[in-house]
Amino acid sequence: MRLVVIGGDAAGGSIAANAKRANAELDVVMFERGAWTSYSACGFPYVLGEHVSGWERLIARTPREHRRRGIDVRDETEVTGIDLAGHVVRWRQLGSDDAGELPFDFLALATGAHDIRPDLPGIEHGYPVFTPRQAMRLGETLPPVQEAVIVGGGFIGLEMAETMRGRGVTTTVITRSDQVMAQALDPPMAAHLHDAIVGMGIDLRLGTPLLGIEERAGRYAVVTPDGEIEADLVILAIGSAATVTLAEDAGIPLGVSGAVAVDHAQQTSIVGVYAAGDGAEAWHLVGERWVNMHLGTIANKAGRVAGLNIAAASLGREPVQRFPGVVGTAAMRLGAMEVARTGLLEAEATKAGLAVRSQVIETTQISAYMPGAAPMFVKLNVEQHSGRIVGGQLLGQRGSAKRIDVLATAVTLGLTTQQLIDMDLAYAPPFSSVWDPLQTAGRVLL
Amino acid sequence: MRLVVIGGDAAGGSIAANAKRANAELDVVMFERGAWTSYSACGFPYVLGEHVSGWERLIARTPREHRRRGIDVRDETEVTGIDLAGHVVRWRQLGSDDAGELPFDFLALATGAHDIRPDLPGIEHGYPVFTPRQAMRLGETLPPVQEAVIVGGGFIGLEMAETMRGRGVTTTVITRSDQVMAQALDPPMAAHLHDAIVGMGIDLRLGTPLLGIEERAGRYAVVTPDGEIEADLVILAIGSAATVTLAEDAGIPLGVSGAVAVDHAQQTSIVGVYAAGDGAEAWHLVGERWVNMHLGTIANKAGRVAGLNIAAASLGREPVQRFPGVVGTAAMRLGAMEVARTGLLEAEATKAGLAVRSQVIETTQISAYMPGAAPMFVKLNVEQHSGRIVGGQLLGQRGSAKRIDVLATAVTLGLTTQQLIDMDLAYAPPFSSVWDPLQTAGRVLL
Repeated sequence: MRLVVIGGDAAGGSIAANAKRANAELDVVMFERGAWTSYSACGFPYVLGEHVSGWERLIARTPREHRRRGIDVRDETEVTGIDLAGHVVRWRQLGSDDAGELPFDFLALATGAHDIRPDLPGIEHGYPVFTPRQAMRLGETLPPVQEAVIVGGGFIGLEMAETMRGRGVTTTVITRSDQVMAQALDPPMAAHLHDAIVGMGIDLRLGTPLLGIEERAGRYAVVTPDGEIEADLVILAIGSAATVTLAEDAGIPLGVSGAVAVDHAQQTSIVGVYAAGDGAEAWHLVGERWVNMHLGTIANKAGRVAGLNIAAASLGREPVQRFPGVVGTAAMRLGAMEVARTGLLEAEATKAGLAVRSQVIETTQISAYMPGAAPMFVKLNVEQHSGRIVGGQLLGQRGSAKRIDVLATAVTLGLTTQQLIDMDLAYAPPFSSVWDPLQTAGRVLL
Repeated sequence: MRLVVIGGDAAGGSIAANAKRANAELDVVMFERGAWTSYSACGFPYVLGEHVSGWERLIARTPREHRRRGIDVRDETEVTGIDLAGHVVRWRQLGSDDAGELPFDFLALATGAHDIRPDLPGIEHGYPVFTPRQAMRLGETLPPVQEAVIVGGGFIGLEMAETMRGRGVTTTVITRSDQVMAQALDPPMAAHLHDAIVGMGIDLRLGTPLLGIEERAGRYAVVTPDGEIEADLVILAIGSAATVTLAEDAGIPLGVSGAVAVDHAQQTSIVGVYAAGDGAEAWHLVGERWVNMHLGTIANKAGRVAGLNIAAASLGREPVQRFPGVVGTAAMRLGAMEVARTGLLEAEATKAGLAVRSQVIETTQISAYMPGAAPMFVKLNVEQHSGRIVGGQLLGQRGSAKRIDVLATAVTLGLTTQQLIDMDLAYAPPFSSVWDPLQTAGRVLL
């Protein structure tokens, strides 16, 4: 029996590894269009920022390592079509004339996502930073750059802004939105982050859409409604979308989010066909809808579930694992600041018909009398009638970000503010005040 | 109506403040034997280590601040007896002849704990570091000290060892036990901590009980079965016990732990008499028994509940708040290392009749390729048949400790290893690997 996995990054690698581990008899073939497998795209900014030396350090498992575990990796090989009725995929090796078909018993889609490039004049002058190839190409152009414009105020845009500032580059961030991280932070938290961004010496221009990029004597003019911004480099971090062409062409149903629809066993509605990762949907546990989020955590978890379930199916068994879903937890470092978020934004909650109460509190990330104590902001979004925590965000210096995990757990389990306050969280002056900042936020809300 | 609070630190201050806030008509009198109220004893090591300048910075709320909120603070005044039948306390002002009686309608015991001083020859030469007065006295003797012996390998002993090393003092820790933190860490985790302690240049002597202290020409010889250790200073950090003399003398029932017995509303079995803090019991949510732990977190939480319930009672109402209990979460910094723990030790679980599986894993506290990545150890104790997490411990460099909060939440709610693995925890390379270390431990266990 053969499993064909399309895509060899986080989800694909997890599917292949888990399926093979659980059924060593299974013939596992993993196609990857690029040269790398199982790499950390989240590490790109740190190589570009020269904190990590060598792109290869971002690779968690190379094709050779996958092969040593019995997985037949076809790198730099693109799957060009899926024939569901015939149970074969068509493939083509990049940079050669090699092409062919390969029959499968089980198919796993781990086709990931791609960066969004709007149809604007001169957009080809911008550097996306979504694939290893793009990131390495950007790295090669960096040394002489003195002025950079980053288009986009989301996670990748801001991480690239940190990277550029860290390299001493004059950096401007433009975003169409009137706040950064509009999909991740409520406006009052974004406002605190704006202060931090400006404090890092980044020129932040909100409400500033990109109209085009003009090349002028080796430099660029970034055209906006408020005029032009000159730069040596334009980085595009506008967003990403699920890569679903193969699935669509084959007739594998997509969900409302536009990504491949799956159930909690990571099965599509086609028997024997599974999907996971950036190209697939995941159930939002508190939003109670299928969503498409591009996060390595989700790709790894869902990939593991898909792989184990495929192995089970190949042994004639029912699914053995279930991926319950996500709450949209994410974190980012920005200079000295750490930002993290989970659950629903206030606006999302309202849209979902939940009446929420909300509170931003300012405290310190460690005991106020300790050296290094600095402001920390916490926002809790709580359902009015039940007191259930539906979302939370925080912003503070070192040691702040991972505290979001308690809120992620609370949101997942539907804990109330009272339950959060009662929780026996750790305290020592170098780590926290005696009431944890999350609990302080809860007390203010109560 | 009058509430008399005995003790003005974390629990007493919380009781008084919350009661007064919830019923402004209540006459609240708070007796405190010392000169300070509502201080952070956990901060002593950082003042002694010269990281924090000025003892007064550890005071969260001075007597004057309490008074401004309408609380009648009687500082440096000891309650010498409680007459339950007569509804009065007897008091005596320290350093004067003033003494008297004060009637009460409600009484709250927040008498805290005291350090244990075994009856050994020369024990009076040792410096305890449990009260502000003791800590300040120790601080005054420190400047010329070059060699120190610390008796005790628990939280306070090790924090004092860190403090002494940080001041360049040659430091020896002796403990009767064959591991440090015997009440907090399972042996394999303690072994990793031993490496860190020795790595800090601390002379750690396990299985070495104190037999006595001899003074010799202004220096001391610490007598042990393995010989004497010479030092300029001997710090006693042997442990602490609930201070219950007043309660005992008055006939207020104690619990099995030796501390004042309370219910979840912080009521003793005497109507109108409440207790909270180091001198009172708390329900261990996973051990399922009443325990006595000396932690500021518990004192603050239980004090808040007691105060609000006393205010309710003074208004003729039933208890409005309930303190569910604790799971024994605690954390400590030790040089570059952070240690944290929650729930049951393996031995405790076994003693409680639970069959547990356990695993120590080694990973890194942040993505392995990031600068600063260093070993992190995680131990999970999981109930065999149910998969329920009953305890956990971790040890690692900066950014490790507060991750225990997710385990504390898991232990509190009885989450399984599978639920931990499924949890949507935050990831970014500067904070974590894509599978959080706790989840990696869970995966290994599954």
